[in-house]
Amino acid sequence: MNRKIVFHITGKLLQALAFILLLPMIVSIIYKEGEFLAFLTAAAISFVIGITLVMLTKNCKKDLYAREGFLIVSLAWISASLIGCLPFILSGEIPNFFNAFFETVSGFTTTGASIVTNVEELSRGVLFWRSFTHWIGGMGVLVFVVAFVGNISDKAIHILRAEMPGPVVGKLEPRAKDTSKMLYIMYIVMTLMQIVLLWCGEMNLFEAVVHTFGTAGTGGFGLKSDSIASYSAYSQWIITVFMLVFGINFNLYFLLIIKRFRSVLKSTELWTYLGIVITSVVIVSVNISPAFTSLSDTIRTAAFQVSSIMTTTGYATTDFNLWPNLSKTILLILMFIGACAGSTAGGLKVSRVILLFKMGLREIKRMIHPRSVVSIKFEGKEVDDHTKHGVTTYFAVYMVCFFFIFLLLSFEEAPFDFETNFSAVAACFNNIGPGFGIVGPVGSFSGYSDFSKLVLSFAMLFGRLEIFPILIALIPSTWKKR
Amino acid sequence: MNRKIVFHITGKLLQALAFILLLPMIVSIIYKEGEFLAFLTAAAISFVIGITLVMLTKNCKKDLYAREGFLIVSLAWISASLIGCLPFILSGEIPNFFNAFFETVSGFTTTGASIVTNVEELSRGVLFWRSFTHWIGGMGVLVFVVAFVGNISDKAIHILRAEMPGPVVGKLEPRAKDTSKMLYIMYIVMTLMQIVLLWCGEMNLFEAVVHTFGTAGTGGFGLKSDSIASYSAYSQWIITVFMLVFGINFNLYFLLIIKRFRSVLKSTELWTYLGIVITSVVIVSVNISPAFTSLSDTIRTAAFQVSSIMTTTGYATTDFNLWPNLSKTILLILMFIGACAGSTAGGLKVSRVILLFKMGLREIKRMIHPRSVVSIKFEGKEVDDHTKHGVTTYFAVYMVCFFFIFLLLSFEEAPFDFETNFSAVAACFNNIGPGFGIVGPVGSFSGYSDFSKLVLSFAMLFGRLEIFPILIALIPSTWKKR
Repeated sequence: MNRKIVFHITGKLLQALAFILLLPMIVSIIYKEGEFLAFLTAAAISFVIGITLVMLTKNCKKDLYAREGFLIVSLAWISASLIGCLPFILSGEIPNFFNAFFETVSGFTTTGASIVTNVEELSRGVLFWRSFTHWIGGMGVLVFVVAFVGNISDKAIHILRAEMPGPVVGKLEPRAKDTSKMLYIMYIVMTLMQIVLLWCGEMNLFEAVVHTFGTAGTGGFGLKSDSIASYSAYSQWIITVFMLVFGINFNLYFLLIIKRFRSVLKSTELWTYLGIVITSVVIVSVNISPAFTSLSDTIRTAAFQVSSIMTTTGYATTDFNLWPNLSKTILLILMFIGACAGSTAGGLKVSRVILLFKMGLREIKRMIHPRSVVSIKFEGKEVDDHTKHGVTTYFAVYMVCFFFIFLLLSFEEAPFDFETNFSAVAACFNNIGPGFGIVGPVGSFSGYSDFSKLVLSFAMLFGRLEIFPILIALIPSTWKKR
Repeated sequence: MNRKIVFHITGKLLQALAFILLLPMIVSIIYKEGEFLAFLTAAAISFVIGITLVMLTKNCKKDLYAREGFLIVSLAWISASLIGCLPFILSGEIPNFFNAFFETVSGFTTTGASIVTNVEELSRGVLFWRSFTHWIGGMGVLVFVVAFVGNISDKAIHILRAEMPGPVVGKLEPRAKDTSKMLYIMYIVMTLMQIVLLWCGEMNLFEAVVHTFGTAGTGGFGLKSDSIASYSAYSQWIITVFMLVFGINFNLYFLLIIKRFRSVLKSTELWTYLGIVITSVVIVSVNISPAFTSLSDTIRTAAFQVSSIMTTTGYATTDFNLWPNLSKTILLILMFIGACAGSTAGGLKVSRVILLFKMGLREIKRMIHPRSVVSIKFEGKEVDDHTKHGVTTYFAVYMVCFFFIFLLLSFEEAPFDFETNFSAVAACFNNIGPGFGIVGPVGSFSGYSDFSKLVLSFAMLFGRLEIFPILIALIPSTWKKR
């Protein structure tokens, strides 16, 4: 166990975070808000802690393996959340630590669950920071460090693997630094496209930027209590399309760039993902149509909500809490499926769900013909035993964690009912944002106790990092020297 | 595919069922009820269909394999349920087919969910039959046939495997017929013990017999709308203990008989099961204590409900629907865990949950040390790959089925809310009985539509037969001749 490199890279991250915090500070200054001091102080604290850690571990060995990767990711995300909540506290806009921590974790993990009940009253700088955490967290805080901070380690791929969602992380480029740079370039280009398109509508630049950050990270923080409901049909459609776009595996965009169109067209995950979206939109449209007068309104509302929940963004144009049971159940199931692996979205991921289905079918075949050998193929390749084991075990661990978090949340009494608590866990653990009941799209998480907020904050971190990194960091023996 | 043997054994089962139906007829005659005619008619129909099937397939080959085992089990359970609901319909006590089918499936699968709202008004014969289906279904309708009907096949173990719950079916004796006879002897002895003990209390013989059938099969049908609430503390404790006793793997009783005490004491599943029960009782007792005046009442109520839900029996001594969230969540989690494999209980089974936990831990170890080989041991033996795959895949299929059934149930609109529907699926799929909300211990399933009742009936069958047999029977290619 190379403990030094863990602290070293965490230090580098905090240094990077100091510079990132200057961006919302600039926004504050532009809008002549006093909150810029909060960002400056937070940046200074981050920088001092960061440089201290880096100096103390200056002579660390640069080699790291899977274990170190998990620890770096756990420590980095928790420290980033602790530093990231300072501006909320220092500005006095979210003075309570548990609220501020919840809001920051919700931002970085691209959940979008909020304890803010009066979002319109927050300052521009704080609103910008809230959404910007989505954008940074979407691609991964360490992908950022690996991409833009000087040479970290030849084996930084272990960090990327631990941070990137989905069952298998493909290497786009032979070197981790190039992979992460490539990812960020695609991410920035798509972000800019959405900003321009939204700006062309009725949104001003600030609105366009904030909502694009929320979409790109599949986060869901916005500027209004009614989320996207008061914006035009044009803006709603743009956001719908881009939510879906950011829910697709980024490897596919890379394949598009290097002109391997056939590989993209043959992607099982992509077509399954789009198939689930379209099927769900059709069923929900039919189910909710009695409440609407025009067909285009119906489809837009259904498409927006389905895309928002499946990509785990969490924006809303209507209070889907009031929808019929069938549509609510479909949304609940989509919450668990999530979007594609290797995207900015949360949930189980479509590719895992496909593999689970295929393994179920294989088990049935094996029961009928006990001596037959049935192999499983995915994206044209045979799936090895390790991956198969990994997927089913992940699912089991995922469900156990889900029910454990639900158990911890049930210390809450009325008015928190079964539906609210269950969907709150689903919404946080899958990094979606709003749930049903009290935590529905027009509600907030503010009524929960500090204990529950802490539990849900860790649920978001568990969900974003796919459980294992933090579990591993919690085992004392992991930290032992070798 | 040996189709003839499938129909042959189904025929034998229906013949056996005809004789079984004479028992409630005798009860009806003893109590001078006109309903005895309903049982006689049902018995006659069962016998005629049975003998016709047996005659038509007289010259069938006696060999059968896993596939035939699954088909026999599926067909047998569905036909037994269809015949078993005739007395309810013919007697006019449950005239609607969907209600009668639901009630019968609920009986055979030892679920105990009921659409009867006025149980006190049913005749003695019908009440006896309702509970007797629990007793037959608990050990398995085909175990009964294999044990008591003449030589069926040398390979009848494939039928037992398909019908017995749990990840691995141990052979108690080299021959299937001996295994199933041994199981039934132990079952009958334990049943008689409970009848005598209950009879020693305030219950009359009829009450003692009916409640023992409900306990032995871990079913839950009783004689009163308030279930066991109006019986004495003595009777409640007897039922609590016997629910736990019938939730233990019957292999352990066999080991006791052959005096292998050490093997019993070393059983991981047994200790985990008892550990979960005790932990849950302690937490629930503390949680519900403010509502009680005496400690013994608190503990008795908690112990009864925890045992009832974990063993998937479903008896109640209180409306646990009104309990605090924490206790309700614990009950919900126990619903999914269930009791031991190889018992009459439903749910995932403790041994599966242990294996899932061990596999989760192994996955973590493998992530920390990617090249290490970590084997999994259970009950002193190394678990082979096949079993490991089977357990995780079963869990995935189980969860997919759960959400699919939940989706079908969400066509129900208000007053059926999220909590009611979710717990209704959990209660039926895990063969428990009552859920929360409208289907709580003082409610009933009568308000659901015919469609939902059919869905829930199949959920109970899926749960009792552990999903695969019926899924396999639904695949047309299974039925093809070879």
